[in-house]
Amino acid sequence: MVAESEIKCVSNNKSFGGYQKVYEHFSNALQCTMKFGIYIPPSEQEDEKFPVLFYLSGLTCTEQNVITKAGFQKYAAQYKIIVVAPDTSPRNCNIPGENDTWNIGTGASMYVNATQEPWNKHYQMYTYITEELFQLIQNNFPVIKDKISITGHSMGGHGALLCSLLNPGKFKSVSALAPACNISNSPTLLPGLKTLIGEDKEILEKWDPTFLVKYYDGPEMQILIHVGTDDEFLKEDLLIDNFVKAANECKDNKIKIEFHLEEGHGHSYYFVSTFIEEHFKFHSSKLSS
Amino acid sequence: MVAESEIKCVSNNKSFGGYQKVYEHFSNALQCTMKFGIYIPPSEQEDEKFPVLFYLSGLTCTEQNVITKAGFQKYAAQYKIIVVAPDTSPRNCNIPGENDTWNIGTGASMYVNATQEPWNKHYQMYTYITEELFQLIQNNFPVIKDKISITGHSMGGHGALLCSLLNPGKFKSVSALAPACNISNSPTLLPGLKTLIGEDKEILEKWDPTFLVKYYDGPEMQILIHVGTDDEFLKEDLLIDNFVKAANECKDNKIKIEFHLEEGHGHSYYFVSTFIEEHFKFHSSKLSS
Repeated sequence: MVAESEIKCVSNNKSFGGYQKVYEHFSNALQCTMKFGIYIPPSEQEDEKFPVLFYLSGLTCTEQNVITKAGFQKYAAQYKIIVVAPDTSPRNCNIPGENDTWNIGTGASMYVNATQEPWNKHYQMYTYITEELFQLIQNNFPVIKDKISITGHSMGGHGALLCSLLNPGKFKSVSALAPACNISNSPTLLPGLKTLIGEDKEILEKWDPTFLVKYYDGPEMQILIHVGTDDEFLKEDLLIDNFVKAANECKDNKIKIEFHLEEGHGHSYYFVSTFIEEHFKFHSSKLSS
Repeated sequence: MVAESEIKCVSNNKSFGGYQKVYEHFSNALQCTMKFGIYIPPSEQEDEKFPVLFYLSGLTCTEQNVITKAGFQKYAAQYKIIVVAPDTSPRNCNIPGENDTWNIGTGASMYVNATQEPWNKHYQMYTYITEELFQLIQNNFPVIKDKISITGHSMGGHGALLCSLLNPGKFKSVSALAPACNISNSPTLLPGLKTLIGEDKEILEKWDPTFLVKYYDGPEMQILIHVGTDDEFLKEDLLIDNFVKAANECKDNKIKIEFHLEEGHGHSYYFVSTFIEEHFKFHSSKLSS
């Protein structure tokens, strides 16, 4: 448990009537200092509480990318939703090779728990998101505690799918923008995952939404997904078709996917900013029910 | 005149149904290679032409800041306006000291014509914006030629005011976000201006909107201005009050200022993105009349 005194506000900017803040804190799960962004919508009354949307970012990102490039604050203000944007990995852990390549280590946005030395001391992003940060947000901000949803972009989409499939009922709704859906079959993403959890195929599959979704046994879940036809990672790394096919095999038809393939769009924040409003509409409808 | 073959598209991303592009070209006015962003709204028919809004950025910016941080593409698509976002200064000109400080030389966003050696060979941003780039956009893009407006942020707001006050009727409408209005009285901005045009008070005043506005003698002009109460440059460097007072002295009441002081907002793109929609509404109403 992280006490209130242990988080420090490092920036605070008025935006669309609310405030875009960034906090810093020492993470017990990750054993390093972490930052996260949090947008607080405008209040109409004192002690007003809001639902929460976690937004997990993708490879090479920090908490800043979505804060500065997605334009989401307009919709967070309009739909009155707190948005939490964590950083994408531990940083400055002095692990040999942590900064050598873009898809392994720092910034590789693997929302899993590492088992391999020396990564396992720090790379516990799954526990960080679903337990430590989840609880910290509830303890420190004006949150409606049973109205928490999750979304993400690219490897952050992978994270959003993982966190919701592995914790049935914890998140009221889940969506993803250009998510990596079948990481154990992706030539770009698999090396980063193997670095953290080893080569065992069965363990690799336990962190892969396409395998998890078949065995999902929680409340019915509708998942909104957007991806662009010109996304350079679509065919070899995101593998969304595999996930949709597997979801259709889930028993009792518990997973329903609303899938939008968007003509001419790529993988960048030009794509995210164009469709983020749809994701706020989606989550708002689920969070208000 | 710059022929079509001389501009080169260096990036192109679909955004809100249109395309955010960046071009590179050799500028004759500046004697160096320049980039500019251009957003082309979605077309409903072939050969559709659009009005244009020039957006001039401020100190330390390139063409990228407004493209990635302002979220304007949504409104450019909605109001069907081409948005041109030039870089803020010449670059890589090998002038001694050009990169030494943030408020002189590269990126200092002085939209004036330098007279001082060695700057005068390159720093002719006023001519670049109002003649060379203005003409290049008309020659190369689907533009309604008599529907061109201008806006800007900070020193880009200074530029927007200058370009419209010095060219009565050239721009259908003008607005500014946190504009530097009285540069010859600003301790932060004056050194950069003096570097380019020298110490002569009369010449300095010729590039200062607060002096120019008193003698404006063109078509009636309404100017929309937003600024935040927590803008760290408001009191010593923007000096908007001086401009508003001087505008009220303009003969025949030809300049009308619609001034919005926004509680709690700062100078950054959190401020710009919050109010940019108001500027699109304003320009759209003027451009459609």
